[in-house]
Amino acid sequence: MSKALSGIRVIDVSRLLTGPYCSMILADLGADVVKVEVPERGDDSRTFGPFINGESGYYMTFNRNKRSITLDLRKNEGQQVFCDLIKDADVLLENFAVGTMDKWGLSYEKLKEINPRLIFASITGFGQVGPYAKRVAFDAVAQAMGGLMSLTGDPDRPPLRVGTSLGDINAGIFASNAILAALFQREKNGRGQRIDISMHDCIFAILENAIVRFTMEHNIPTRIGSGHPSVAPYNVFTASDGYVIIACANEATWQRLCQAMKRTELPNDKRFNCNQQRSINSKQLDEIINAWTATLTVAELELILQQNSVPVAPVLSIDSLVADPHLRERNMLVEVDHPLCGKITIPGNPIKMELSPDTIECSAPLLGQHTDVVLKEIGYAPAKIEYLRQNKIL
Amino acid sequence: MSKALSGIRVIDVSRLLTGPYCSMILADLGADVVKVEVPERGDDSRTFGPFINGESGYYMTFNRNKRSITLDLRKNEGQQVFCDLIKDADVLLENFAVGTMDKWGLSYEKLKEINPRLIFASITGFGQVGPYAKRVAFDAVAQAMGGLMSLTGDPDRPPLRVGTSLGDINAGIFASNAILAALFQREKNGRGQRIDISMHDCIFAILENAIVRFTMEHNIPTRIGSGHPSVAPYNVFTASDGYVIIACANEATWQRLCQAMKRTELPNDKRFNCNQQRSINSKQLDEIINAWTATLTVAELELILQQNSVPVAPVLSIDSLVADPHLRERNMLVEVDHPLCGKITIPGNPIKMELSPDTIECSAPLLGQHTDVVLKEIGYAPAKIEYLRQNKIL
Repeated sequence: MSKALSGIRVIDVSRLLTGPYCSMILADLGADVVKVEVPERGDDSRTFGPFINGESGYYMTFNRNKRSITLDLRKNEGQQVFCDLIKDADVLLENFAVGTMDKWGLSYEKLKEINPRLIFASITGFGQVGPYAKRVAFDAVAQAMGGLMSLTGDPDRPPLRVGTSLGDINAGIFASNAILAALFQREKNGRGQRIDISMHDCIFAILENAIVRFTMEHNIPTRIGSGHPSVAPYNVFTASDGYVIIACANEATWQRLCQAMKRTELPNDKRFNCNQQRSINSKQLDEIINAWTATLTVAELELILQQNSVPVAPVLSIDSLVADPHLRERNMLVEVDHPLCGKITIPGNPIKMELSPDTIECSAPLLGQHTDVVLKEIGYAPAKIEYLRQNKIL
Repeated sequence: MSKALSGIRVIDVSRLLTGPYCSMILADLGADVVKVEVPERGDDSRTFGPFINGESGYYMTFNRNKRSITLDLRKNEGQQVFCDLIKDADVLLENFAVGTMDKWGLSYEKLKEINPRLIFASITGFGQVGPYAKRVAFDAVAQAMGGLMSLTGDPDRPPLRVGTSLGDINAGIFASNAILAALFQREKNGRGQRIDISMHDCIFAILENAIVRFTMEHNIPTRIGSGHPSVAPYNVFTASDGYVIIACANEATWQRLCQAMKRTELPNDKRFNCNQQRSINSKQLDEIINAWTATLTVAELELILQQNSVPVAPVLSIDSLVADPHLRERNMLVEVDHPLCGKITIPGNPIKMELSPDTIECSAPLLGQHTDVVLKEIGYAPAKIEYLRQNKIL
């Protein structure tokens, strides 16, 4: 069965996380992603743990379904090979510092002449234009300067970084949206185009209502732990063997929680007799609930609260997720066969489409595994490939 | 200038955040998003703050560039109107509980007969299939059961919810990827299709290398605050008037930081003389750096560290972001003119494309503002519209 992007070729010179995450989405959707890596060393993420037999699980997670070629873009002959690759490509993805592609003679203006249908997508910390464009960024910088960190954490502690590289990943997911939109637009007008995605813009774009809270009411939103600004109880509570979320969005649910806790006097306590009072006194309220939850296991709390129709959810740790029957059934845990590591379980593709299967066709490539086959596809003779290899262009 | 999705019509019956965020991306890309709201009450998010003149800034943020009609999908006649709307639509987006559309006689199988080119996209907490499919979810449940919460927070405190509704927003961004891919695929095969997006899947898909750390090395990743598992110093530090990120990825940068701190003895201290030692002793290291940063302002730290080529970034709060010259220049803060509230500044569109301008054409609609015009577009006579209104179908 073909996939949504079958027949689309992406030349991907991006490295580390944000670009590879974007091209992973495109590869999972069926695009032929040709990952261009530095000869000998490859993508820096090949050195990021965890490892099996010296191979990076980090790299494997984000580069499944792709092919790898080596090519030295810093050398003139490498740049010529690159231009040949671009001739028939649909998408170029890069996440170098602003100006790097220009410096190598691979500017959008030049590549557009070679291939006017090319979609040239860049992801950088702060975008191609604007006063911060040349500023170096990494994930934590985007989270900090994009405002997300100021909203995450407990009020009595410093701001916190989200426990995944959301600055990178979120920009990658927005970038694939842009590339897909450009592919669709090209069906209408026959033209490629330039795309400029900034990690900083993308974090700023996911701050929910924080911006209008300031622009409309001049409140400066800040950290409120795991609570809700206007609903109580709504928090993470500590069980004897883990943590659960409990939330009561209305009076009836609150009364059922009190029944479950065998604290039927609480709904009449004037500190807790309406949502507004409970929000004001949420610290005391949370202490009362925590005193109860601490006496029970996560499984016991789930059972009791579900019986009482009170919203409850366990805070799941990674080991339990890997065994989760729901994620397994939804093909969100996929076993791939890696040539050097054997069978490895990696996260699956969350884009579930009727006509574009969510299959992971192959594990991440070895460095340069597809150099010969890809160069042959664009018409290079074996002698030329051998010449390029001997001259360390590949 | 046309946009990437000019000419595409989305019938959007989704409410609250995850669906509206998805259709906001499509609307920003130029789709005609017709938001179908419950008569009289509208989208529940119209009751979420902040407010100006009784109008919700929450709703305004996610519903700009859309049109609003009212329609009661619970009534037979409303369902008939809905089927008429679907005839010419390209995309249907919904985020009701699993089975709700079927219950209303608006199943995919039925709508596909009316319009075989229809892309029918659902976003739910746990997806359409799998053992948890019927389980009720909201943002914090997706963050908790998807594993993100177990990774976010300080090690000595309970897990933390990210300070934005990432469970909703992230699924919305993945859903727009799926819809764009389906639109592209339809250009090739002429067929619509079913899309099934789960908030839980989508959170699980952004956990970076957490899954392979468990499946390859049997480590259970957990909360590490804002630090880095294998780089030190790398953290949030407290200035006299705010917070900064400081990171040293190599020895040279670490030595320059020590010079900036006038602590040139530290690189020779055996607790700190290599990255591995610094990681092991990161708590002591962070205390030393915090003792220095506490004596300086954020601006002073930025200046000194930039002069010494040490990566530094301020943790920006929402008020400073709204004044940020870079975000302003990149059109990430957009003033819209709302009929009841006047000029309001909302966040812009982070998808920057050469041939699809990132403009916000209009503010969010009033409830049912476009009911008459949209029903006229599908051929309804004024008398029929009046009849439907009197019978409280609209």
